[in-house]
Amino acid sequence: SENGEEPNQGGKQSKLSTASFLPSWTKVSCPCCASDRVEPLVLVKLGVKVVPETKRWLIKLIGTPKKDGGADLMAHPGEDATGDIIVVSAPRCTLQRAVEELGLCKMYCNGDMEAFSYSDRDNFKNSDNMEGFLTLAERQYIVKYELDGLRAQKDLRVPGLPENFTLKKRDIIWQKLGSVGVIVDTLPLHNPNKLKDLSKAWYFGNQLVQPLDEINEYFGSPVAFYFSFLDFYTWSLLPPAMMGLFILPITNFAGDMSPAGSQVGEIQEDSGFVISGHMILAVFSMLWSTVVMEMWKRRSASLSYRWGTLNLAERFAEPRPGYRGELGTNPVTGRVEPLFPDWQRGLRMALVSVPVVGLFLGLVVLGMMCFYWGEARVQKLHTDWDSLLTRPLLYAPSVLHIVYTNMLATVYKTAAESLTEYENHREESAHQNHLTAKVLVFTFFNYFAVLFHIAFFKRDVPLLRKRLASLLIVSQLVNQVTEVVIPYLVDRFISSPKRNEKEEDPVEDKFRNQGNMPPFPGLFAEYIELLVQFGYLSLFSCVFPLTAVLLLLNNLTEIRSDAYKICKLFRKPFSPPVGDMGVWQIAFEVLSFVSVVSNCWLLVLSPRLQEKCRRGEMSSTDLLLGAVIVEHLLILVKVIIAALIPDEPNWIRKKKEQWEYKSMQALRQQSTLTSR
Amino acid sequence: SENGEEPNQGGKQSKLSTASFLPSWTKVSCPCCASDRVEPLVLVKLGVKVVPETKRWLIKLIGTPKKDGGADLMAHPGEDATGDIIVVSAPRCTLQRAVEELGLCKMYCNGDMEAFSYSDRDNFKNSDNMEGFLTLAERQYIVKYELDGLRAQKDLRVPGLPENFTLKKRDIIWQKLGSVGVIVDTLPLHNPNKLKDLSKAWYFGNQLVQPLDEINEYFGSPVAFYFSFLDFYTWSLLPPAMMGLFILPITNFAGDMSPAGSQVGEIQEDSGFVISGHMILAVFSMLWSTVVMEMWKRRSASLSYRWGTLNLAERFAEPRPGYRGELGTNPVTGRVEPLFPDWQRGLRMALVSVPVVGLFLGLVVLGMMCFYWGEARVQKLHTDWDSLLTRPLLYAPSVLHIVYTNMLATVYKTAAESLTEYENHREESAHQNHLTAKVLVFTFFNYFAVLFHIAFFKRDVPLLRKRLASLLIVSQLVNQVTEVVIPYLVDRFISSPKRNEKEEDPVEDKFRNQGNMPPFPGLFAEYIELLVQFGYLSLFSCVFPLTAVLLLLNNLTEIRSDAYKICKLFRKPFSPPVGDMGVWQIAFEVLSFVSVVSNCWLLVLSPRLQEKCRRGEMSSTDLLLGAVIVEHLLILVKVIIAALIPDEPNWIRKKKEQWEYKSMQALRQQSTLTSR
Repeated sequence: SENGEEPNQGGKQSKLSTASFLPSWTKVSCPCCASDRVEPLVLVKLGVKVVPETKRWLIKLIGTPKKDGGADLMAHPGEDATGDIIVVSAPRCTLQRAVEELGLCKMYCNGDMEAFSYSDRDNFKNSDNMEGFLTLAERQYIVKYELDGLRAQKDLRVPGLPENFTLKKRDIIWQKLGSVGVIVDTLPLHNPNKLKDLSKAWYFGNQLVQPLDEINEYFGSPVAFYFSFLDFYTWSLLPPAMMGLFILPITNFAGDMSPAGSQVGEIQEDSGFVISGHMILAVFSMLWSTVVMEMWKRRSASLSYRWGTLNLAERFAEPRPGYRGELGTNPVTGRVEPLFPDWQRGLRMALVSVPVVGLFLGLVVLGMMCFYWGEARVQKLHTDWDSLLTRPLLYAPSVLHIVYTNMLATVYKTAAESLTEYENHREESAHQNHLTAKVLVFTFFNYFAVLFHIAFFKRDVPLLRKRLASLLIVSQLVNQVTEVVIPYLVDRFISSPKRNEKEEDPVEDKFRNQGNMPPFPGLFAEYIELLVQFGYLSLFSCVFPLTAVLLLLNNLTEIRSDAYKICKLFRKPFSPPVGDMGVWQIAFEVLSFVSVVSNCWLLVLSPRLQEKCRRGEMSSTDLLLGAVIVEHLLILVKVIIAALIPDEPNWIRKKKEQWEYKSMQALRQQSTLTSR
Repeated sequence: SENGEEPNQGGKQSKLSTASFLPSWTKVSCPCCASDRVEPLVLVKLGVKVVPETKRWLIKLIGTPKKDGGADLMAHPGEDATGDIIVVSAPRCTLQRAVEELGLCKMYCNGDMEAFSYSDRDNFKNSDNMEGFLTLAERQYIVKYELDGLRAQKDLRVPGLPENFTLKKRDIIWQKLGSVGVIVDTLPLHNPNKLKDLSKAWYFGNQLVQPLDEINEYFGSPVAFYFSFLDFYTWSLLPPAMMGLFILPITNFAGDMSPAGSQVGEIQEDSGFVISGHMILAVFSMLWSTVVMEMWKRRSASLSYRWGTLNLAERFAEPRPGYRGELGTNPVTGRVEPLFPDWQRGLRMALVSVPVVGLFLGLVVLGMMCFYWGEARVQKLHTDWDSLLTRPLLYAPSVLHIVYTNMLATVYKTAAESLTEYENHREESAHQNHLTAKVLVFTFFNYFAVLFHIAFFKRDVPLLRKRLASLLIVSQLVNQVTEVVIPYLVDRFISSPKRNEKEEDPVEDKFRNQGNMPPFPGLFAEYIELLVQFGYLSLFSCVFPLTAVLLLLNNLTEIRSDAYKICKLFRKPFSPPVGDMGVWQIAFEVLSFVSVVSNCWLLVLSPRLQEKCRRGEMSSTDLLLGAVIVEHLLILVKVIIAALIPDEPNWIRKKKEQWEYKSMQALRQQSTLTSR
């Protein structure tokens, strides 16, 4: 058998690899899936001490049909039976059955997307050619899904492992073997040719459009959704950027930016206008953010339709491997699986998770207070004593605070993981969303606590502006450097020479090399960066008209650096099919509402209006009252806009109704057939 | 054939009626539905000038099978072929097919509620006995549904009508005949025995529990939902009522209630407490309202499950008779029907409905301003001239304002109906909801405009309190009188003697008498009364601790008077099956949020706090700021509570998932069967 590389590169490659791939792929149990081309999808790295006996047992398990407790996949032992890798692929039937179980939609013969049905497979387009039918990311995810789902059918011993290690009935094999070091790593394999094509279309040159479908094909829907959102968000920065550029010349930008700007502003613009360009811009961008998020929901729905993830059936599939509970019959699907009552999860969330998260947020506040207290003490000490000895002490509070914050963040991350595990979510997506939400709240609080403190307690607008401006500019510069320059240098001068890959290397070594790259850190950092940006934009909008312009420029390079990073610098990640951005969607929407509150508050604190109050032209109560009314009106308008723009385009709503109608009809007809 | 009264009363009744019912019911086309007992469900009153020829044609049309353009019902000509009534009933098959089309759930043989499927009818409980299978309200609604749905299959002339009157193809027969006076009325018939049982269980005696299932059986789900909500809401007044009674003795109620209460309050309670019992009560009741509305949603969902209206398929049924559009194929169901694009409806709502409603609201404000202006002018005139001649003038503005307001309300109602008709909603429920929403906004604005004006512009809290207290007490007294005493007197001394019904009257005359009762005015007035109550409670909660107690007492009698009204004083209404309260649900929820804003504002205006400001103990800016913070916190807590309490009980969520899973499976299996 061949190594299963793409046919268009088969010539040279297969010559090289036939020699090395002396052992062969396991036989497929199902006759219809026998094929002369097998595509290596996933690499399993074994521990160095694993004996050939265990490896043979594993390979057999992977190839065993599902009804006998196997994964119904195909395995290849690499160079020989003693090597520390197993290459895994999937036959057609296994892939198709998993597609049905996951609830993916595929193109039907009439051109519509329909939920795939294994028994009706012949009517789906491309259903005989897996590389056209499923994306690479889907094929690889399904392999992982099957491996993760392997459960011992009875108590058994694994050959080659110590006597005291046994698998109990219903143990999750992959997890348990991972915990004793038999399996070190499971990673999806890159496809170098496809990767080259993708990078060319993605970040070489000056493309304005990203190849979203190709990203989805290669990296899967979570990554594709991130880049779609980045793209969408970047282009939707155009209107506020243009507004900003348009308003810049007609406003006293300098006057409002300088800490004691009220004097300058007074001279330039005190012509009776209380409503300035900045305020117009602020109102504009507050409404803009709602429209953008609503439009994104529509875009997200149509992307999800296109990628077949609009009605995933995760609820009806097997629970995620980490799910614990008493064995019982699922009342919905009738499957035997662990059951865990929802109210108990709710109780755990309310009584454990919420207090613990609250405690950590409290610790952040405590740290901040200690920092301010320490700062004041040190300042006093320094002015009292004023010696060279006390000068370094001036930096102590900041350093201690940074160390404290970082330690707290690390501890919190572990805590969040255990808490989410303890909450025991049934679906992987729910688990991920709850984990992300926890980390997100903390990170965001950590980022903005100082700013909120300055804005709401110190009420020191000039300081807030300095702080915000420096954060915006510094963080963007730092990000650009860390994201583009350093990774490039690392890859160019450290990683590449070490990998030292040659064309004529055996395929196994290339595979092994991929395992040596750092694992992909996930999209959390990327999303939070966007969220913080979005936060700056919302907070800044009433002060600094150029924010949107700067962000637009930043994001145009950000797209490229993120793309470069994921293609070149990390292992390929496994990507479960998803239908939207998950919890990030909510985070952006919540932020867009919070921004109204903070913007209105900042307007109240704006030096010009405060000056008017001081001079008695306007009572501070009236000012506050006006701001409150404007805030309530804006929130009302935002709620109305959000309600008026439908979350899905009309044609998707129609499609969903069609699905619903069809299944209603099918249910009625089916009962007839069974009752006859 | 017999007249089809209940079998337990058959003896005497049928003897009386066999004589009068000389003509007989039309034959049923379907052999399985032939039965010796026919229940008269609906009365059709014809115009006095209708000739027997037309009546015969109508009777034939009602009995004709659906495929030939008829209604597939059963008709009875009353005393003879010349009388002005037709009694209509429905055979089993027609009822069952309609149940399937409407998407009603019925009890399956395993005890679960399942969407009824005609082809699987034998597995549903009671499916051979229509009086156990369907509620009376459902049977009657289905008859109306079939009659309203009658469409001319081709251009045709109606016998006995003038030459120039022709029905065009696809004309709605019932509507068109109604417009030329052939059909004067279509009304569901009371069932006297059932009505007697129902009244006994409902409002005679001191029952604390309402017979909701029986109400649903007799009057249908909209009425049952109203009474369920009234019941639920009344009992949930207990906690705030108890809180109110508990707090009353420990607060200076008199001090806060008296127009110049600050002096009294000062003496009694100026012990440094800024937070008074009233504030605690206010916060309590603001949170209480959210919890109540969330719990009601859960209750509503379980009632809806019990009554089989949880997943109505109105979207997939025929559009409502008034729906206009170009004929085309419905992309979802494949039926030929009028189609009207959604965006066009949206456009009409945005460009016509919203401005017109806004205009009317503007007219309300204008009227109010004119009233205040007139009041001021008249006062001035009176003080200037002070003669007996000017004294009556003092009442002129109020009288004019009341006349203006009433005229406006009448005009608005017509406008709202035409606007909603113009919006052209496909489903009857959507039509009703949009109509209700329009009238609701106006009525509510009308009720509260003056109060809001006093609270937000005049900022005159004592006046507001006086106004609110008098409204609350006066409106309750007036309501009790108009709702209990007057109807009773009218019925006892005017209607009953005129009807002068005797046991031995022919059944037809009894039926005719029902047509002479006033038509049921709908539940709008009842719901708006509850909504205004709820509004008073929310607005008052920070001022008047006894509100909840008063409302509780009021509602306990309200339940009985409403029940008496619907049972005795009006015609039986047709009730389409509904799954919830529709737009009222939203109205209550919105009000519960608005009340937070108004409560916090009233707290700011409270005399005690204002006095503190005047004495310089507290800056008015700080006070306002505090109120704003409290308001934001309360809204946040309300949003979180609303998000945390699931809208459906867990078991209903499970049920829904089961349905979804089953239909998913059915769809998959079905495609296999068709593709084979």
